[in-house]
Amino acid sequence: MKRVKVSRKAHFNAAHRLYRKDWTDDQNSTNFGKCANPHYHGHNYELIVSVTGEINPATGYVMDMKVLKDHIKSEVEDAFDHKNLNLEVPEFADLNPTAENIVVVIHEKLKPILQPGQSLEVVLYETPRNFVTYSE
Amino acid sequence: MKRVKVSRKAHFNAAHRLYRKDWTDDQNSTNFGKCANPHYHGHNYELIVSVTGEINPATGYVMDMKVLKDHIKSEVEDAFDHKNLNLEVPEFADLNPTAENIVVVIHEKLKPILQPGQSLEVVLYETPRNFVTYSE
Amino acid sequence: MKRVKVSRKAHFNAAHRLYRKDWTDDQNSTNFGKCANPHYHGHNYELIVSVTGEINPATGYVMDMKVLKDHIKSEVEDAFDHKNLNLEVPEFADLNPTAENIVVVIHEKLKPILQPGQSLEVVLYETPRNFVTYSE
Amino acid sequence: MKRVKVSRKAHFNAAHRLYRKDWTDDQNSTNFGKCANPHYHGHNYELIVSVTGEINPATGYVMDMKVLKDHIKSEVEDAFDHKNLNLEVPEFADLNPTAENIVVVIHEKLKPILQPGQSLEVVLYETPRNFVTYSE
Amino acid sequence: MKRVKVSRKAHFNAAHRLYRKDWTDDQNSTNFGKCANPHYHGHNYELIVSVTGEINPATGYVMDMKVLKDHIKSEVEDAFDHKNLNLEVPEFADLNPTAENIVVVIHEKLKPILQPGQSLEVVLYETPRNFVTYSE
Amino acid sequence: MKRVKVSRKAHFNAAHRLYRKDWTDDQNSTNFGKCANPHYHGHNYELIVSVTGEINPATGYVMDMKVLKDHIKSEVEDAFDHKNLNLEVPEFADLNPTAENIVVVIHEKLKPILQPGQSLEVVLYETPRNFVTYSE
Repeated sequence: MKRVKVSRKAHFNAAHRLYRKDWTDDQNSTNFGKCANPHYHGHNYELIVSVTGEINPATGYVMDMKVLKDHIKSEVEDAFDHKNLNLEVPEFADLNPTAENIVVVIHEKLKPILQPGQSLEVVLYETPRNFVTYSE
Repeated sequence: MKRVKVSRKAHFNAAHRLYRKDWTDDQNSTNFGKCANPHYHGHNYELIVSVTGEINPATGYVMDMKVLKDHIKSEVEDAFDHKNLNLEVPEFADLNPTAENIVVVIHEKLKPILQPGQSLEVVLYETPRNFVTYSE
Repeated sequence: MKRVKVSRKAHFNAAHRLYRKDWTDDQNSTNFGKCANPHYHGHNYELIVSVTGEINPATGYVMDMKVLKDHIKSEVEDAFDHKNLNLEVPEFADLNPTAENIVVVIHEKLKPILQPGQSLEVVLYETPRNFVTYSE
Repeated sequence: MKRVKVSRKAHFNAAHRLYRKDWTDDQNSTNFGKCANPHYHGHNYELIVSVTGEINPATGYVMDMKVLKDHIKSEVEDAFDHKNLNLEVPEFADLNPTAENIVVVIHEKLKPILQPGQSLEVVLYETPRNFVTYSE
Repeated sequence: MKRVKVSRKAHFNAAHRLYRKDWTDDQNSTNFGKCANPHYHGHNYELIVSVTGEINPATGYVMDMKVLKDHIKSEVEDAFDHKNLNLEVPEFADLNPTAENIVVVIHEKLKPILQPGQSLEVVLYETPRNFVTYSE
Repeated sequence: MKRVKVSRKAHFNAAHRLYRKDWTDDQNSTNFGKCANPHYHGHNYELIVSVTGEINPATGYVMDMKVLKDHIKSEVEDAFDHKNLNLEVPEFADLNPTAENIVVVIHEKLKPILQPGQSLEVVLYETPRNFVTYSE
């Protein structure tokens, strides 16, 4: 069967700051500029989750978009939306929440939804002009 | 010569429903939810067609975008726009018009425009949040 | 207090055709072109609903966006989404579902949510390039 | 001379929470839901600033867009970008930073740039689906 | 009958420079910066044309969008697309082609399409971040 | 370490015409249509520059987006913005400035910013509906 990539957009709003606990304020500020602001700032993160796999000949679906939407909601939106990533999301307790690290964490959280033979790509927009992509 | 991907956006509006003739109403409703509504619903389908090939050193084009635009119009827009996909487009007489199946059908309709050595990718947005991609 | 306009985007997918029961096929086709296709076609309708009113000094809200979002869902999305406007939405049983008529119907359905002193504007995109606006 | 509205888009990223110091946690949570999260969340705020006035016949400008862009940068972006609105922006020390209150504050900060006879409108997107408009 | 605003998006690509023939190069450069570059630069101009009027009870249209689209094509796109505004569009032979002046010229070219009782608004995007609006 | 693609959007406005000096006016007009207009036309070029590489475990960055933004500014925006590509950008003195040729030139100008093991993709939108992609 043909392999098709199906993609679903989602979003969440969160606060974060970029810093390492084991660095001084000066080191954090030098490396992360205003993103290291200790009072936090935030973003509307836009997300595109894509699953590539064979079309199921019975349904014509690679994956029911509603199922994909529900997985994104339970695994990502419920966990991240209206949260402070540094303080409230366990994956970032000791991991700097750069866009790169967030996209890898989201990829790991969503991987279990794949069926055998499917692959996963995640795109994360931190702002309308900055975004990152991870696939495996 | 360098290989470049040239992409052109297009769109069409159509009605469809998701169902299989050989399934009961209950089976269709269970698998396709409100998308199985027997009175049809519809979408503004947005399309991105990309041809990858070598730049022609004489013109600086991989493919004249106007030619690509005209092929998309005659092969896809004229065939699908303001149509009922289930009732009026022969490719879906016995094929469930999911986004996945539509994108593969469009890919097949456009493949003949390729020159030797070129490849084709089609992206189809069913809604601004749901889209599918097929390449070969 | 200052009067502010608060706006919320929503969307629904529906099928329709443009025609009048009391006109011949020829009259319908002459007036509405391919939009009169008797097999229907469809759109992703995008909606922007705006309420203008005074800021409530207690909350800083003109209207809680979640309440506005819920009203749009119950009054518009649940009534129109994945429906055939001509066959399944009573307001269009004898009213041609042009974008102009749809936006006025939506406006009438949402007016009851207004508090005294508030006004309502509705914008309806039929396609990304065609849209209509109604306010009162 | 003809009166034209000239508009410029800008943006800033900030953290905030919705709450009133003089309310209990329960009251704040009841009124503002997850937006009251004490650890803050954040947004990419998108801004459209519009000045309406007569075209200067000498230049053909209502206002030089570069001047408008610079005013928005110094009055809004420098003051709000990568900040915690509740903790670091004095205007919100005792004012709940709802979208409605933020758009009025931005309007007040920008009003001094107007020439006699000009008027000002500010649109603020809190998310791609929620936005507010204030003019005077 | 209800008055509704119907809007149609269009676009054209053109070259221009900002300058006055009766000013020195220094004066032009001081007032218009890099926009005065004597070798020209260019834009993808995006246009939104809106006609407000009563719904025709016979058709449900304020104005057939196809007719509006055709008027925009013949009056604006055919006249401006792939042109040098300063050298090839007579309206700008002695008028500086700022966005403000262009939007007024487009408004004048389109006004004759109005029926009695209708009004016209034109929005012109010079870039995705800069736009102007004129109505009468 | 995980390889992530980080992407940054940018833009510039420029004039150009498509033609070859060694062809007659007729040949140029036949091959390039209205794009060969000798008085030039122009575009708002939108650019997406993507660098793929390993996440630096010290910072959580593949590449600081501010550094990427600054490189794009100095290498592309400062060189191309508000310029006539044919007359003022040396790379196009003898190279037809089609979107395909421009995207390859931008790729060559940005390649020196890569660290060992990183790769580069450039997407260039000539209009909102036409774009090209080059990677190596």
